Amino acid sequence: MTNLIEYKDASVEVRKIYDDIRAIRQTEYINNFWKALANHPPTLQRTWDTLKEVMAGPGEIDPLMRELIYIAVSVTNGCEYCIASHTAAARAKGMTDQVFSELMAITGIANMTNRLANGYQIPIDEQFKS
Amino acid sequence: MTNLIEYKDASVEVRKIYDDIRAIRQTEYINNFWKALANHPPTLQRTWDTLKEVMAGPGEIDPLMRELIYIAVSVTNGCEYCIASHTAAARAKGMTDQVFSELMAITGIANMTNRLANGYQIPIDEQFKS
Amino acid sequence: MTNLIEYKDASVEVRKIYDDIRAIRQTEYINNFWKALANHPPTLQRTWDTLKEVMAGPGEIDPLMRELIYIAVSVTNGCEYCIASHTAAARAKGMTDQVFSELMAITGIANMTNRLANGYQIPIDEQFKS
Amino acid sequence: MTNLIEYKDASVEVRKIYDDIRAIRQTEYINNFWKALANHPPTLQRTWDTLKEVMAGPGEIDPLMRELIYIAVSVTNGCEYCIASHTAAARAKGMTDQVFSELMAITGIANMTNRLANGYQIPIDEQFKS
Amino acid sequence: MTNLIEYKDASVEVRKIYDDIRAIRQTEYINNFWKALANHPPTLQRTWDTLKEVMAGPGEIDPLMRELIYIAVSVTNGCEYCIASHTAAARAKGMTDQVFSELMAITGIANMTNRLANGYQIPIDEQFKS
Amino acid sequence: MTNLIEYKDASVEVRKIYDDIRAIRQTEYINNFWKALANHPPTLQRTWDTLKEVMAGPGEIDPLMRELIYIAVSVTNGCEYCIASHTAAARAKGMTDQVFSELMAITGIANMTNRLANGYQIPIDEQFKS
Repeated sequence: MTNLIEYKDASVEVRKIYDDIRAIRQTEYINNFWKALANHPPTLQRTWDTLKEVMAGPGEIDPLMRELIYIAVSVTNGCEYCIASHTAAARAKGMTDQVFSELMAITGIANMTNRLANGYQIPIDEQFKS
Repeated sequence: MTNLIEYKDASVEVRKIYDDIRAIRQTEYINNFWKALANHPPTLQRTWDTLKEVMAGPGEIDPLMRELIYIAVSVTNGCEYCIASHTAAARAKGMTDQVFSELMAITGIANMTNRLANGYQIPIDEQFKS
Repeated sequence: MTNLIEYKDASVEVRKIYDDIRAIRQTEYINNFWKALANHPPTLQRTWDTLKEVMAGPGEIDPLMRELIYIAVSVTNGCEYCIASHTAAARAKGMTDQVFSELMAITGIANMTNRLANGYQIPIDEQFKS
Repeated sequence: MTNLIEYKDASVEVRKIYDDIRAIRQTEYINNFWKALANHPPTLQRTWDTLKEVMAGPGEIDPLMRELIYIAVSVTNGCEYCIASHTAAARAKGMTDQVFSELMAITGIANMTNRLANGYQIPIDEQFKS
Repeated sequence: MTNLIEYKDASVEVRKIYDDIRAIRQTEYINNFWKALANHPPTLQRTWDTLKEVMAGPGEIDPLMRELIYIAVSVTNGCEYCIASHTAAARAKGMTDQVFSELMAITGIANMTNRLANGYQIPIDEQFKS
Repeated sequence: MTNLIEYKDASVEVRKIYDDIRAIRQTEYINNFWKALANHPPTLQRTWDTLKEVMAGPGEIDPLMRELIYIAVSVTNGCEYCIASHTAAARAKGMTDQVFSELMAITGIANMTNRLANGYQIPIDEQFKS
């Protein structure tokens, strides 16, 4: 089992990142994902910088929709941790049961039709190539 | 290679579905996916009914966002046909280059962090379980 | 591009395996998969022995059904080569268009429901654990 | 955790679907998958209709073989819930330990050879394209 | 749940394989993977022979690096059992925390860039085709 | 099809990254992956910084081995572009045919045993949990 590094046991370098996570997310809680990555500070730093920029930085896709896209990927890959943590994050950003169910329906049929397209070996329409 | 069934060669049953696709999508063009599924009318009927309801029916997630979620899944699965056809569909619904690039960034990091969570065997936080 | 090793250019060791493939499959044709694996004779030998035993050896699942299972996996993984080659193999063993379409329908919904189960984080029923 | 909706707490609409599941499956037991989908009746309805038609409707592939195909997909995707529930369903339809083991062997080698084909970048044989 | 076959309950045929596993791995411990496969001796035999040859036989990739490759695949597929067992195996062969973290970083970005390549539908450079 | 941005058409910002890619990789050639990402400079910057650090920065896993791990992931995911480009990169770093074949063998059996572990629903051994 991966060692989870608590704030009190963290190096100055890691604490600084934890502080930034807390500030950006506006919560005292540091979740296990970050406590695990803290075992390798360069990975923690790089992953947090990327996530902060992509999920919380400026952009045209609104923050809740970003979470929905994230969940769709995590559900497709079957990542239990990510499904649980990002479903919680999406709910905190306003995801209703209705939106969650629509998300699941879309994710489900995309996974189905992806395989129908694979299996029937469907050639790409010329007009989709340009 | 799967036989693609053109409108002129289609049965009455299949033509009726093609007509509905054209009406809902407001285009004369029937893409290869449907022409391939037409080899098995029950699959064509069921798949179209499901897609129509989930992607074009009433709901809280707006139609462009549904396409983005669909693309995120297709990119994760590596379905070339679906990526090409739904990227075209999303552009037709207003997806800009900027939105597409944000979508790719989110899809990319979700695939990355899914594996970090798997590999570090991170236990799900208690508060994400309730 | 991987070098494809033709019979005339093959070593005695590889020719012996090619001869066995021809005998078991009752066809002169050696498909590209084997010609590629022939670049590494131990992999060719091991893979052929395994495939021969699992796909062509004695067993309770009949040979056509084994091909269907194989296709379902290949379609799920999106392996173009394997979909093309095993669809051809299944047709040679009697797969009709109807059976192929049923196979695609099952493969499609399994991929869909797999994601619904993931996303809804459904706990396994006690009675399925025993 | 997803709320599981019991029969006694279900709406008339959901109860009607539960009744149909019980009738088709000839068992009083409603498994967690359906109790979770019941949180969104349109998804419950659509998924059950599809599953009933594809897995329990008329067709050339016999019901046990349909379950084997379903399991092969679920094992490939690593869906724990689906593996557990459909292994139970297949056993109820007559799957022996021998058949299960053959299924695992086929699923395993298909996953292996899919990657060998990917990695060696094997071109599709001309005769598999027609 | 799969029945795990202990040495004392195993057939002569299975015990012989268990003995070989113990000899090659230089440990008395037989892990659950083998005890599960022992339910189908031909699968146990074939899988062990393959693993022994590929993971423990002569070769240019050193044994620890083979384990790292194995873990990268298992993490990508999200196979919990394989991640746990091969992480333990790699540690026994000398994998440090630093090496594990580098492995996770590589596995993570490969999964990310795989999707960027899919999504941007990037054509393969001519010079990578020869 | 994604627009590929050539050096001569690139902004100053993108040219600076292209220059860094050329310097680190010691080649004039910029491959299509970067020319595609250049459509969104922040993604180009972030992805290159990450790749440079993880694949070309200091570390205990040697550069060729990093490429092998990268290929194993790409083959598992079936990313054609990544397989082609990183196989070329690995060959440039000294990957022989023998090493490539060993890599394919390991990747293949890991994909196989991942599914055997999934399908047999094997519980994780206590000693792999600590």
